[in-house]
Amino acid sequence: MDAKDFDHWVDTSLSAFEAALDGLVPASAPAGLGEAMRYAVLGGGKRLRPLLVLASCAAVGGDRFAAMRAACAVELIHAYSLVHDDMPCMDNDVMRRGKPTTHVAFGEAQAMLAGDAMQALAFDVLTPDDGIAPALQARLCALLARSSGYDGMAGGQAIDLASIGKQLDECTLRDMHRRKTGVLLQASVVMGAACGPASAQATQALSEYGAALGLAFQVVDDILDVTQESHVLGKTAGKDQDANKPTYVSVLGLGAARTLAQDLRAQAKRALAATGLADVSHLSLLADSVVERVN
Amino acid sequence: MDAKDFDHWVDTSLSAFEAALDGLVPASAPAGLGEAMRYAVLGGGKRLRPLLVLASCAAVGGDRFAAMRAACAVELIHAYSLVHDDMPCMDNDVMRRGKPTTHVAFGEAQAMLAGDAMQALAFDVLTPDDGIAPALQARLCALLARSSGYDGMAGGQAIDLASIGKQLDECTLRDMHRRKTGVLLQASVVMGAACGPASAQATQALSEYGAALGLAFQVVDDILDVTQESHVLGKTAGKDQDANKPTYVSVLGLGAARTLAQDLRAQAKRALAATGLADVSHLSLLADSVVERVN
Repeated sequence: MDAKDFDHWVDTSLSAFEAALDGLVPASAPAGLGEAMRYAVLGGGKRLRPLLVLASCAAVGGDRFAAMRAACAVELIHAYSLVHDDMPCMDNDVMRRGKPTTHVAFGEAQAMLAGDAMQALAFDVLTPDDGIAPALQARLCALLARSSGYDGMAGGQAIDLASIGKQLDECTLRDMHRRKTGVLLQASVVMGAACGPASAQATQALSEYGAALGLAFQVVDDILDVTQESHVLGKTAGKDQDANKPTYVSVLGLGAARTLAQDLRAQAKRALAATGLADVSHLSLLADSVVERVN
Repeated sequence: MDAKDFDHWVDTSLSAFEAALDGLVPASAPAGLGEAMRYAVLGGGKRLRPLLVLASCAAVGGDRFAAMRAACAVELIHAYSLVHDDMPCMDNDVMRRGKPTTHVAFGEAQAMLAGDAMQALAFDVLTPDDGIAPALQARLCALLARSSGYDGMAGGQAIDLASIGKQLDECTLRDMHRRKTGVLLQASVVMGAACGPASAQATQALSEYGAALGLAFQVVDDILDVTQESHVLGKTAGKDQDANKPTYVSVLGLGAARTLAQDLRAQAKRALAATGLADVSHLSLLADSVVERVN
């Protein structure tokens, strides 16, 4: 697969994804809640998690309807976490994806409610009355709940909160990021694989791919935070530095952080090779696209 | 069944419930998150929702393990909603169940994260690796997600937020409360019924019982808000009045609100009679216990 084919696959997948998500997030929710939810999740973003779900499902030849629902569910979880994370009591961020954050646009109370409702909606879209086998619905709910809860994303944010102004060693930093962003990225890959008849070996290798990619993503994010301007990032640059938050750059230095990102990409690709699957090209090129943001 | 038997059933059920919940909410969650979650959900409360799940499951002769998980899940959703609802950007309440609210005890950021993690945990406990048939796991997740999301609890809170200082007619007030508290109480009853081999007729009648009881609960809550002192309620009394929030008492007057509560109890009991189930005594006495708080 060449770069042009990959770009075409990304475009086609994202069009279908945006249409599916648009149909699932209700404009009709009462008292402006639907408007706030739609503002928070339909406003763009890289959509890396949905692409991982869809690419992983394609690699195992899985059920595309189920994978599309899983892609929407994962993105709803990611988007709700951004809404809550941006609020004044957390990061107090006023700009996201080049526009005012949800609490700036709708008020804090509505933003908190919208985040809460988005989390519930994620599990709602995984459990339709028909179209997905009940056992797969249950499996997808389990994967999403565990990766976003106390032992995953929410736990990572608690560590993040407690780490402000502290020196962390690389091991603790890695554990924080694994939970905060890595576990949900990994879950995206595993949820995609769950939509098909993947062998235990393939599922395990895909999970390792997801873990390496998840960590690479965070390392790259930390590099971009110090090397790019706010208008390019679409959010406030230098934020972590200003907040005195430990990052891969502050712990390892810029050069070693760049090397780590490359090593993780290589690790992700070795895991893909170990899946035994015929075509993992989308997943491979997604790993490239994550790391090449800093090159 | 006499009152003593019912009290014994409540005591036994609550002991088992508290033990189950205690085992499911992790003290080990990172960076104080587990402590905040445990503070928010293990601190007592009436446990009406868990009792409804367990009583409904018992009435249909359902799976007790599944019902206990469902009871924990529903209570986790209820408890997370209280944590978020008490925060400064919402009701700004400092006292709940006779102790400081979660954000007062742990800070706003940790309280928001604890609420988020409690919601995820609710779906986590419904999807164990074994012990509950996958189709039942999926059904319980669907019921919980829909009753707590934009069309249920979160939607009701958005209406509540938008209604402060406004005059509402009884119909709009009823819709707000149906979503805000009624739908989750009703879902508790339906989730309990889903754990057993309930007929469509029994499930429908139990759902109607839940709807009437849910509304009665809110009417009673509004009556107590104006007739009881803070130290009896364990939370700030007169709060709705002070916040200029519409209540059943402000819309109907105290006498008519009391009559409505009695009418709803009678309606709940008629629905129970229509279930065709042999023993609905626990559910019947739970309806009494809800309404008799104001007599």
